[in-house]
Amino acid sequence: MMTFQSLAEIAALADTLPAVDEGARAAALARQNSLTKPPGSLGRLEDLAIFMAGWRGTDRPRIAKAQAVIFAGNHGVCAQGVNPYPQDVTKQMVANFEAGGASINQLCRVNGAELSVVALDLDHPTADFTQGPAMTEAETLDAMNRGAAAVDPTADVLILGEMGIGNSTIAAALASALFGATPADWVGPGTGSDDAGIRRKVAAIEAGLRLHGGKDAMTTLASLGGREQAAICGAVLAARAARIPVILDGFICTAAAATLYAAEPRLLDHCLVGHASAEPGHRRLLAAIGKTAVVEFDMRLGEGSGAALALGILRAALECHNGMATFGEAGVSEA
Amino acid sequence: MMTFQSLAEIAALADTLPAVDEGARAAALARQNSLTKPPGSLGRLEDLAIFMAGWRGTDRPRIAKAQAVIFAGNHGVCAQGVNPYPQDVTKQMVANFEAGGASINQLCRVNGAELSVVALDLDHPTADFTQGPAMTEAETLDAMNRGAAAVDPTADVLILGEMGIGNSTIAAALASALFGATPADWVGPGTGSDDAGIRRKVAAIEAGLRLHGGKDAMTTLASLGGREQAAICGAVLAARAARIPVILDGFICTAAAATLYAAEPRLLDHCLVGHASAEPGHRRLLAAIGKTAVVEFDMRLGEGSGAALALGILRAALECHNGMATFGEAGVSEA
Repeated sequence: MMTFQSLAEIAALADTLPAVDEGARAAALARQNSLTKPPGSLGRLEDLAIFMAGWRGTDRPRIAKAQAVIFAGNHGVCAQGVNPYPQDVTKQMVANFEAGGASINQLCRVNGAELSVVALDLDHPTADFTQGPAMTEAETLDAMNRGAAAVDPTADVLILGEMGIGNSTIAAALASALFGATPADWVGPGTGSDDAGIRRKVAAIEAGLRLHGGKDAMTTLASLGGREQAAICGAVLAARAARIPVILDGFICTAAAATLYAAEPRLLDHCLVGHASAEPGHRRLLAAIGKTAVVEFDMRLGEGSGAALALGILRAALECHNGMATFGEAGVSEA
Repeated sequence: MMTFQSLAEIAALADTLPAVDEGARAAALARQNSLTKPPGSLGRLEDLAIFMAGWRGTDRPRIAKAQAVIFAGNHGVCAQGVNPYPQDVTKQMVANFEAGGASINQLCRVNGAELSVVALDLDHPTADFTQGPAMTEAETLDAMNRGAAAVDPTADVLILGEMGIGNSTIAAALASALFGATPADWVGPGTGSDDAGIRRKVAAIEAGLRLHGGKDAMTTLASLGGREQAAICGAVLAARAARIPVILDGFICTAAAATLYAAEPRLLDHCLVGHASAEPGHRRLLAAIGKTAVVEFDMRLGEGSGAALALGILRAALECHNGMATFGEAGVSEA
């Protein structure tokens, strides 16, 4: 099992973790070009199949097991009035996930993913980053390790999601610190903030940046992030160690993983982004990390919902890749 | 069973066929707003569930049976060199559909649709529309009736696709005649035409429009269309009679159904478009008929492949709609 002992070591992991298997990628591309369709006519379904081949290290990748994990955390910055929902909702939604009543439960069931929920010290929110660092290095590493431990090394794909009242503020703070632009460029309504709520989010982030700006990526995670953000980073790295492709969710999940990108861009090479969120900062973030989302559906729910929706598309891509006949097998004339 | 006896009668069907059930729509919207998520945060998944509710006439629509039908036809205009594949490929691909080797077979299996293929007189292509009308009224009505007869009235959703070497030229000819702009604005590479092939497509359509331009929509279908285009129109109308929502596929399928839109826009109110094709005319066509595609994936294969991909999204939308807990049921606090 992967264990992290120092934030300063994270960036260098890119040199030791597995890289894409170029041979498997090339073999998958050759197979795509032999199937009974005009070459390239399955568009991005072809790209997804080839991506999976490269990371799973086989020209015929399959999804026998899809794992979905939601990490939940609470945030001291809620003291600044950044979210219209009471902080108890984090725990209430964890209960809803466990009872099967949330969006992510339905999306995992329909697309065949096994869902688990990891509640991270919900009764002990991180510190308010407007007053000091949100987490110590030890707290950050502990959350990263709990994220890594949640990854099933026998899964073929990993879907990551989050829940945490106030965490669209966390995401905007991380993005602003890591990629520049102003806090207002990254802040949106989140779960439904009005204009005054958005101003409170911006003011809190500005205060956080005054205290914690200009630090390296992993220290920024500790200073402005939360436990679910750190856990997502740990899970992304543990998946990479097992050659498991990851589907990130929307703005908050992507912002968490983008910490790794800021530390070392190659650390996200095995990650897809499931959907482009309606939360306005997400498009800017996708541009910053050089990713195109699988689908765009005006969703802004989190929980892994956009990633779980994208799993259905990924399954469709692999069904075509593995199940279609070649021109030769089907006796179909080529152009 | 629906039987068409005159092309002149089609437009008036909009007054007698079922309309959307506004009460069911309103009840479905109210349910969406009670579920454990910020209102609107499932984006277009919410829209899809509400659309289904309106057409199925219930606030809790379900897909117990999804039907997919591919109509296949051959086209006399292939004599003008409009396609790089030999015309035999239509029949070869029908055999591939029946053997389970095509893209659409895999996509129907993964998304739970029952697929059938209706081959329409493949040994007797329609007439070359550069020389005269492609079909007589009787031939057109016969194909429409075969399309209508293929619809299972117990299905909850109908996916339509097509196969026919040369039929991207048919689609561009119909679109140009029905919605204006020049043939070159509607013509793309189709299955893979090079620049010379595209020029042959444009020249054939220009010749067709000189012979058949300026006629009413259904006569245009007979003059420039093919049997699979007429069958799609018949199936769309039969589905409407049974309150079955339809998922149209890409450029060619949409162009066929757009004949009905040109005859009377309300005739397509129960239709979604599954995907926005990479074939360049499709975007222009979607704008002309006022539809937004469910997904956009750079696909350009036809066969119903984009519509079958969208079925997975529609199923996800209904799983959330029907399976999620309300705030009250889950004991989650509201904003």
